[in-house]
Amino acid sequence: MLSAENRQIRLARRPVGEIGPEDWEHATVAAAAPGEGEFAGRTRFISLDPAMRGWLDDRRSYLPPVGLGEVMRAGSVVEVTESNHPGFRIGDLVVGTFGVQEHVVSDGKGTLKVDPSAAAPSTFLGALGMPGMTAYFGLLDVGALKEGETVVVSGAAGAVGTMAGQIAKAKGCRVVGIAGGAEKCALLTGELGFDAAIDYRTEDVRKALRTHAPDGVDVYFDNVGGEVLEAALANLAMHARVVICGAISQYNATEGVQGPANYLSLLVCRARMEGFVVFDYAPRFTEAAREIGGWIGSGRIKVLEHVVKGTVNDFPQTLRMLFRGENTGKLVLELV
Amino acid sequence: MLSAENRQIRLARRPVGEIGPEDWEHATVAAAAPGEGEFAGRTRFISLDPAMRGWLDDRRSYLPPVGLGEVMRAGSVVEVTESNHPGFRIGDLVVGTFGVQEHVVSDGKGTLKVDPSAAAPSTFLGALGMPGMTAYFGLLDVGALKEGETVVVSGAAGAVGTMAGQIAKAKGCRVVGIAGGAEKCALLTGELGFDAAIDYRTEDVRKALRTHAPDGVDVYFDNVGGEVLEAALANLAMHARVVICGAISQYNATEGVQGPANYLSLLVCRARMEGFVVFDYAPRFTEAAREIGGWIGSGRIKVLEHVVKGTVNDFPQTLRMLFRGENTGKLVLELV
Repeated sequence: MLSAENRQIRLARRPVGEIGPEDWEHATVAAAAPGEGEFAGRTRFISLDPAMRGWLDDRRSYLPPVGLGEVMRAGSVVEVTESNHPGFRIGDLVVGTFGVQEHVVSDGKGTLKVDPSAAAPSTFLGALGMPGMTAYFGLLDVGALKEGETVVVSGAAGAVGTMAGQIAKAKGCRVVGIAGGAEKCALLTGELGFDAAIDYRTEDVRKALRTHAPDGVDVYFDNVGGEVLEAALANLAMHARVVICGAISQYNATEGVQGPANYLSLLVCRARMEGFVVFDYAPRFTEAAREIGGWIGSGRIKVLEHVVKGTVNDFPQTLRMLFRGENTGKLVLELV
Repeated sequence: MLSAENRQIRLARRPVGEIGPEDWEHATVAAAAPGEGEFAGRTRFISLDPAMRGWLDDRRSYLPPVGLGEVMRAGSVVEVTESNHPGFRIGDLVVGTFGVQEHVVSDGKGTLKVDPSAAAPSTFLGALGMPGMTAYFGLLDVGALKEGETVVVSGAAGAVGTMAGQIAKAKGCRVVGIAGGAEKCALLTGELGFDAAIDYRTEDVRKALRTHAPDGVDVYFDNVGGEVLEAALANLAMHARVVICGAISQYNATEGVQGPANYLSLLVCRARMEGFVVFDYAPRFTEAAREIGGWIGSGRIKVLEHVVKGTVNDFPQTLRMLFRGENTGKLVLELV
């Protein structure tokens, strides 16, 4: 049997600041054959996530950094093309951390079979995948969200933000989204049903929050850090919870992260700021997927995906879209 | 009856940066006589607290700022000299927020009678007063301290720090104190029984924490902010709690507070940073005082006081000692 070519994107060097084309290596290897108890798959959809920037730095984090010369880590949906594993059949769609490559081999550990009747396959990288889980547990568990509270979400038009805002609405909260650009803001208050949206590119976020959250922010779900985090800290309600999910505005910083100078409002407001890593909630993913699936099924939550079609060679420039705020909803590379 | 003179220290203008002599007004008024249901008292001990710096700024906080021309807010112990209140007799010692002045009149609300058999009167401004309550509830309630954990306390030789470290020891924890100067550090590991002390003036705190808390910091009790907070954030254990009690290194900042650039370790470590205000725990002060009193009685906790003797006119320069790190233990002005 003729072995197929497997194109891969590997980390060539650790980026300093913004990721450049020279940080990646485009490699082509022979696609491996599955051994006993393994299956082979062809990649269909690759997830692009802000967290990827952190995986490229050589420092202590919740996952080890991607090694130099290694295939870039990424979640993806693959279609089984050959199987020596009793649990997987040809044609099955499987979600896993398979990396940025065209062909994969897996023993099935840490993967999840997609139920195509439940949702489109790419949804398992977004609303029913890590971003959805992140929004769900970040808000409900870390944020300890209560009905009737005022919730502010930054990066609100992104994969996690669109879900966080909609989950908060589904839970009976008042929701203010912060995003970049009039188009994204219109989407938030229109199709996604947010109560208000703030365009951080043209508005004074601190003042706008005073207008849209006059009694203060009970839960602030932060995806961006920087000045937007400062503005939220300046507008906390008593006993507020600040959920640190990410800090995309800081990921490319070469001169050090901007620390939140307004952190002493945690003291004044008896508030807390707390970080989390979604993987810790793995035992409860099924529970979350069931509830989110219900909201999607009833139309209460809209799935927003930004699908770029191409090959694995398009991964580097597609990833840059995230840091330029060019995506709306979950960014996915569909291999065609 | 001849009315006595009452010397007072009032706020003349809002300080910019460090407090200067010109920010205070030294006033002399006639001591007021107590009305029906009131008592008059002569001030014996005045409390000096880092939080006072915040009360001078005209901004939103947990208490309204001291108004221009008003007597400076301060906790103190007064001795009753005249009484039209059935609950107070001449000679009684009373703790309250009576302000920086020699003579006071009070209806007794918000005050506490000192039991002289329990401890020296000044102790009710320190170990059995707000600093003691702050250490107790900050560690046990906000910090959710558990036996066997590693606790790091900054400003460890101060009023709150000496109590926080000793309470953590009494609760069976490993305690590392951070303070300025060899003398203070020797006191912490000597008389106060801390397991280790770090001199932030001569040591690299981040490295020293790696040595003294090799498995990471479970609870960091922060009184200082700035670089010491950064170092602690860089050394958190999983699920750590950072208790924001104060930020004395930042109180005189004229160019904005230094935000903790390492705040994203909250995410990596699934940790939380939380502020609190001790007054919220007022209903539980008796409970705390009982336990702290027991520790003092048994010699488990040592009361450390730095008593300056003088008149109310010595208040301004005595207050400056706090921001220069010149006090060890609770700083008190005793009127003689």
